[in-house]
Amino acid sequence: MRYIKLNTNESPFPPSEKAQKYASQAASLLQLYPDPQCAELTKKIAQNLGVEYENVLVTNGSDEILNFAFMAFCDKEHPCVFPNITYGFYSVFAEVNSIPYEEIPLRDDFTINVEDYIGINKNIFIANPNAPTGIALALSEIERIVKSNPDNIVVIDEAYVDFGNESAVSLVNKYDNLLVTQTFSKSRSMAGARLGFGVGCRELIADLNTIKYSTNPYNINKMTMAAGIGAMEDEEYTKRNCREIIKTREYTAAELEKMGFTLTKSTTNFLFAKHNKISGSEIYQKLREEGILVRHFDKKEICDYNRITIGTLEDMQILIDTLKKITEGK
Amino acid sequence: MRYIKLNTNESPFPPSEKAQKYASQAASLLQLYPDPQCAELTKKIAQNLGVEYENVLVTNGSDEILNFAFMAFCDKEHPCVFPNITYGFYSVFAEVNSIPYEEIPLRDDFTINVEDYIGINKNIFIANPNAPTGIALALSEIERIVKSNPDNIVVIDEAYVDFGNESAVSLVNKYDNLLVTQTFSKSRSMAGARLGFGVGCRELIADLNTIKYSTNPYNINKMTMAAGIGAMEDEEYTKRNCREIIKTREYTAAELEKMGFTLTKSTTNFLFAKHNKISGSEIYQKLREEGILVRHFDKKEICDYNRITIGTLEDMQILIDTLKKITEGK
Repeated sequence: MRYIKLNTNESPFPPSEKAQKYASQAASLLQLYPDPQCAELTKKIAQNLGVEYENVLVTNGSDEILNFAFMAFCDKEHPCVFPNITYGFYSVFAEVNSIPYEEIPLRDDFTINVEDYIGINKNIFIANPNAPTGIALALSEIERIVKSNPDNIVVIDEAYVDFGNESAVSLVNKYDNLLVTQTFSKSRSMAGARLGFGVGCRELIADLNTIKYSTNPYNINKMTMAAGIGAMEDEEYTKRNCREIIKTREYTAAELEKMGFTLTKSTTNFLFAKHNKISGSEIYQKLREEGILVRHFDKKEICDYNRITIGTLEDMQILIDTLKKITEGK
Repeated sequence: MRYIKLNTNESPFPPSEKAQKYASQAASLLQLYPDPQCAELTKKIAQNLGVEYENVLVTNGSDEILNFAFMAFCDKEHPCVFPNITYGFYSVFAEVNSIPYEEIPLRDDFTINVEDYIGINKNIFIANPNAPTGIALALSEIERIVKSNPDNIVVIDEAYVDFGNESAVSLVNKYDNLLVTQTFSKSRSMAGARLGFGVGCRELIADLNTIKYSTNPYNINKMTMAAGIGAMEDEEYTKRNCREIIKTREYTAAELEKMGFTLTKSTTNFLFAKHNKISGSEIYQKLREEGILVRHFDKKEICDYNRITIGTLEDMQILIDTLKKITEGK
């Protein structure tokens, strides 16, 4: 059975042709070490974001920059907080580094209550938009959080920022306690390449570089570096794909609502949906039987929901038709 | 000026054509996440080494498996030791993980005194052959060290094992306290791909997997994984290159001795050489002026020496001719 994979928030589009071409070229020169500074790629990212070279650190996926942030800025005396429903790895990183952490409950509608984070005086990790809820905070709300915790680091994880949100990168030179992380895995169709980066003021990036050079200086291989340069030179392709995904997302959301689904207001490449009559696990199971994989979470607050990645329009039409059969007459 | 790069122990040969081909193919599918278990590559490595799948963990360069070993097995109550002259990263990993360590002096001839490590009751890291000295311990000596420290982990870093040495991989199912690490960076011409691995008993590999899944589950990208599979299917190419490098090494060593150089007995892809009349830094500087880069260390015990990577026979002939001019009449 060929599955339609809507369970890991991958892009339905291939990487940019430039990314593929540069990566293939790099494969013939693998006998040489990669540039540990990732200078050319770092420069391109900085240019595209409108920041300086010293504001950017490239890592082996955004997981690596997130782990570096836990290592560099948190310890027993500097605990951290994040929402109770968010990217599952924050608690894993905190635990492996023996860092005390607190999980702050979302509101019942899955939104983050910004007041919970104002002047909390702990390091803060917020995915914006949040996952798996798909809901974003406005940039002005992020700024209030950052501003009110000047002696702590606020990490804004923007893995899904490119699907219709404002980035906090514009604030990194205004606040020295802000680290923004992004990834090439989603909008840039490069989950398989493992490439992410952090953006912050130069002192903060310098601290993270110390961790990098103490753990794995050659963290980015030559092919991924080359592919990243290709993707940066082809941002028009990324933007086109994002527009396509947003259009497909809005169409799919409207169709799901017609069938009795309740959805959060997602500004990502996935939907977070529960049916008013059928349980989340039953939807998950029935879709699976029909060859469609979505993501179901057992956690009680969200077990009525499924997270559904936006694939191609054709994939989503198959999903919609299948859900029509599953929900018919309920 | 085009430099001849004999300073970072890279292979002078390109990666296997199969490695290049598989990597290029993988570049077109980067939108999908890599297999976090690296199942196919792990299986091929295990097969080639004659061990089980559960004995192998693949990492982002051998630096990553070494750092994982420090994280998994050492802490304030479990300090570690390594030679005072060895791979420079052991002390860096120990420091970033706040692990107490002791550096045990080599003998004056740069050999490791095995007796220093017998029953020492601390975790032990030994590069075999050692770097930058190039000198190897016999497998029977490694076994004595492992056997005499049953309650501690002994890590044997075999980055340079393929250039004429016996591997300790044959001992991993006999001793549950032995971890052997290897890399694709040297003999397999893949320094740019970042691929290494550890081999140990299954419980020990399971512990290291826990660290991996708590820090960066997708540590190996799709292209590197594919290139690694290609290299594993083409071990004959690796062996041929190693034979070539050994031959060139022996020729170069003999030529250097004729010019008044003293060399250690290297069984690696580099030589470690001092001239009887000219200082190490002068040799380094004069070679650099002639467009040849070698590695010089300021550390006082070894500052008379240079570490010279074995390149192609043509590169080494240029090195030899240049050194003849430098040493003439001295």
